[in-house]
Amino acid sequence: MNGAESLVRTLVAGDVEVCFANPGTSEMHFVAALDRVDGIRCVLCLFEGVVTGAADGYARMAEKPAATLLHLGPGLANGLANIHNASRARSPMINVVGEHATYHLEHDAPLTADIEMLARQYSPWMKTSRSAGEVAADGAEAIAAARTAPGQIATLILPADTAWSEGGPVAAVPAIPEREAVDEAVIDAIAAILTSGEKTLLLLGDKAVRARPLEDASRIARGTGQHVMAQTSNARMERGAGRVAVDRIPYPVDQAVEKLEGFKHIVLVGAKDPVGFFGYPGKPSRLAPEDCRIHLLADIAQDQADALARLADRVAGDATPDLTPAHRPGLPADGPLDPDSIALVLGALIPENAIITDESVTTGRNFFPATAGAPPHDWLQLTGGAIGVGIPLATGAAIACPDRQVIALEADGSGMYTLQGLWTQAREKLNILNCIWSNRSYAILNGELANVGAENPGPKARDMLSLDHPAIDWVSVAEGMGVTARRVETVPEFAAAFREGLAHEGPFLIEVVM
Amino acid sequence: MNGAESLVRTLVAGDVEVCFANPGTSEMHFVAALDRVDGIRCVLCLFEGVVTGAADGYARMAEKPAATLLHLGPGLANGLANIHNASRARSPMINVVGEHATYHLEHDAPLTADIEMLARQYSPWMKTSRSAGEVAADGAEAIAAARTAPGQIATLILPADTAWSEGGPVAAVPAIPEREAVDEAVIDAIAAILTSGEKTLLLLGDKAVRARPLEDASRIARGTGQHVMAQTSNARMERGAGRVAVDRIPYPVDQAVEKLEGFKHIVLVGAKDPVGFFGYPGKPSRLAPEDCRIHLLADIAQDQADALARLADRVAGDATPDLTPAHRPGLPADGPLDPDSIALVLGALIPENAIITDESVTTGRNFFPATAGAPPHDWLQLTGGAIGVGIPLATGAAIACPDRQVIALEADGSGMYTLQGLWTQAREKLNILNCIWSNRSYAILNGELANVGAENPGPKARDMLSLDHPAIDWVSVAEGMGVTARRVETVPEFAAAFREGLAHEGPFLIEVVM
Repeated sequence: MNGAESLVRTLVAGDVEVCFANPGTSEMHFVAALDRVDGIRCVLCLFEGVVTGAADGYARMAEKPAATLLHLGPGLANGLANIHNASRARSPMINVVGEHATYHLEHDAPLTADIEMLARQYSPWMKTSRSAGEVAADGAEAIAAARTAPGQIATLILPADTAWSEGGPVAAVPAIPEREAVDEAVIDAIAAILTSGEKTLLLLGDKAVRARPLEDASRIARGTGQHVMAQTSNARMERGAGRVAVDRIPYPVDQAVEKLEGFKHIVLVGAKDPVGFFGYPGKPSRLAPEDCRIHLLADIAQDQADALARLADRVAGDATPDLTPAHRPGLPADGPLDPDSIALVLGALIPENAIITDESVTTGRNFFPATAGAPPHDWLQLTGGAIGVGIPLATGAAIACPDRQVIALEADGSGMYTLQGLWTQAREKLNILNCIWSNRSYAILNGELANVGAENPGPKARDMLSLDHPAIDWVSVAEGMGVTARRVETVPEFAAAFREGLAHEGPFLIEVVM
Repeated sequence: MNGAESLVRTLVAGDVEVCFANPGTSEMHFVAALDRVDGIRCVLCLFEGVVTGAADGYARMAEKPAATLLHLGPGLANGLANIHNASRARSPMINVVGEHATYHLEHDAPLTADIEMLARQYSPWMKTSRSAGEVAADGAEAIAAARTAPGQIATLILPADTAWSEGGPVAAVPAIPEREAVDEAVIDAIAAILTSGEKTLLLLGDKAVRARPLEDASRIARGTGQHVMAQTSNARMERGAGRVAVDRIPYPVDQAVEKLEGFKHIVLVGAKDPVGFFGYPGKPSRLAPEDCRIHLLADIAQDQADALARLADRVAGDATPDLTPAHRPGLPADGPLDPDSIALVLGALIPENAIITDESVTTGRNFFPATAGAPPHDWLQLTGGAIGVGIPLATGAAIACPDRQVIALEADGSGMYTLQGLWTQAREKLNILNCIWSNRSYAILNGELANVGAENPGPKARDMLSLDHPAIDWVSVAEGMGVTARRVETVPEFAAAFREGLAHEGPFLIEVVM
């Protein structure tokens, strides 16, 4: 058994069931080993940003890491933007990056790069295997690191000769430390704040926006007369009818500041002291009022659900959670498509147990109210701000949950970054309904020009924000990659195409012209 | 004048005429300044790999740097693979990377990353501007660094507040050092080797594969009875009728070793001691015979053309260069398309003064003989092995040379990496004829599986190399991005579509089904 095979067998033994891959020469032994080892599904992606974004989506839904297979430094570089997002989503991921044979590196062949320098900032665990005999043990360590809270990126760099030389035995994954429980003293302190009479916000992120901790947070808020809110962007929120609906901090700084006005305390649960996505002239970086004090109930590595449950027992009394009743908006009448009418169509038609991946950027800012009473579903957002995650994220989520309908809400600007993911959706026959908001611009930047004080843009500046001339024909692009597609321009057309897409087996794409 | 405008004006004053851009919020002031400053053409690309690959293609043809405009760490990361290629092509490039406002960085907003860590290995010059007053001077330094031989990547990181605050005056570019001339003693020594009677190879790369130095190299070889060859991959080779045709070191290690057999000396001119693209079990990393001695005539930073001219004067006597007579192969008869018949069609139809960008990978290995006698043209190759450069490279070359026909020879696997470049070709109405070799596989890897000793691949391994199911419909994909396209399956169809593409105004794409 060579080193590559010892690694593949170790991954399987460590419950890594999926590998998203874009291999090259240096990864050929890993690829060849797939035929000798059962238990791992290898999914080919035609660009590494799709590989890593899919691994992120998989991890968010499967609650465990996928492996990625990447080709040397440039292959890793192509995947970094979505590794950035995954890192901010606290998604576990095991990157296997092929490298030149150890003895070949000194010759500086064309593809040579310092892979560790590229990987380091996103990889709390990173190692270059030194010999074939160590590869399995390195792989087991990588699995353990990825699985350790809060969920980490582990990058294993595999020189080709450590893959093809005789390897060691399959390695067992070291014990994964449990999430740390929050000290009772912290529960005491937060309970005191919540019952102090001063206006307090429970700010939720990470694992605290799942159904059960949201219920506990709601009980706490009701029992104490306090408030609960979620971060702007969340890796995976469980929501819909019968669950607790929670407001998020708005993206625009002014709205966020207004929303946080008057709070004397913010209690963080898997969230961070809220800050603007960007700095703007004359606007604050921190969003909370100056006199607001920030407290920590549970950080991203701790057991946030347990902390909320214990806190609820302490302060919520008999309060029950504020569960959202089942309610679908009516389909709007005939008319053009805009963010409001789109939200109503989504609210009316999202099926039970759907997984929504949302990279809508501007179009999607107000999707939450209209969809709050739709049947229970998961909502996955862009966590790191590096656009191009949506199509890959949906792809990975569908691999993780083959029995659930995935709905990808995607802006045209961000969709173009990693459109190659559509091909993988077709190849794997994934039930993904892709909706592309085709406003033919980097719409967010029109607002941002003004926000940063660059008023009265001229034709050259406006041209840099426009995706018109030529307008992208998403139907043609999608069908070229094997995905059935429709273009819609009105509410009834969108609703009809949405229903068709849900009924369709395999991926489907709707170009929503706005 | 704010810092951003002081930078744009400095770029214009420093003869930077083009900026390839994918801007975001942090770059809005740079974008807004474009309307207040004439003299710079800003080209929007929908993915950063297109931005940097286009800047590479521009630099190879314009012989001067373009600027790029990239959005924070992830935007730079998306452009790194083609920066890797540009770095190996010694293409000058000035990357302007937006960054959070200096005071905003400490808050670790979602897009925060260590940009310098990402840029460092490819950027001999790199700086983060500290204040708006310094931005112009930093920009001038970046221009000078990029232009300094051998041609460098310069990365200027621009915090948003240094862009929007009041800036300093336009800065003048420091003097660019001349390329160093090779010492006379070196000419003496190489002359002695060439006339020693021992079998010697002049190995050319970098600037030595342009028309004039190739003539001198040919005179030297003829005058001394010695040999001349070029590196496997070259940033820009001038070739065709009336020029010197030169063999390249083959990509496959066994063929390369065979070709270099018997040489006692290799004299490098802008080239490196030849090594295999990858290491393979039981095969050497270095390609030259063990007893072959490596000598340097001129390195990539020195004046290679001058060195060859002086050496020719010394040793070539009356020898004339071996100029290739004008000769086009006849168009092959009706039949299927394969690498050989494709090469003949290219040889028959390449127009005078064409710029060929070649990322053909396997299909293109034997294109040289059939095209050697075609009218004079430039041939640009993938220099760093990071696939995905072809479509962007053609885009940048066409911006640099609006009066010349660009022909992009592209494999389907590598083309999918940066297919967004087709949209920029359509938007800018560039005369680019894209030929996609649609073999529906990562064909190179089928051979590489065997080369690395991974014999008898099973269905899972073979599946990782196949781009079939679904086959990509390149006509549909291209037309979706505004590029006229045809699919061809026979020699006459290809020839007819090729002629149509040449006559067509704006970009054109031929899917060549193999």
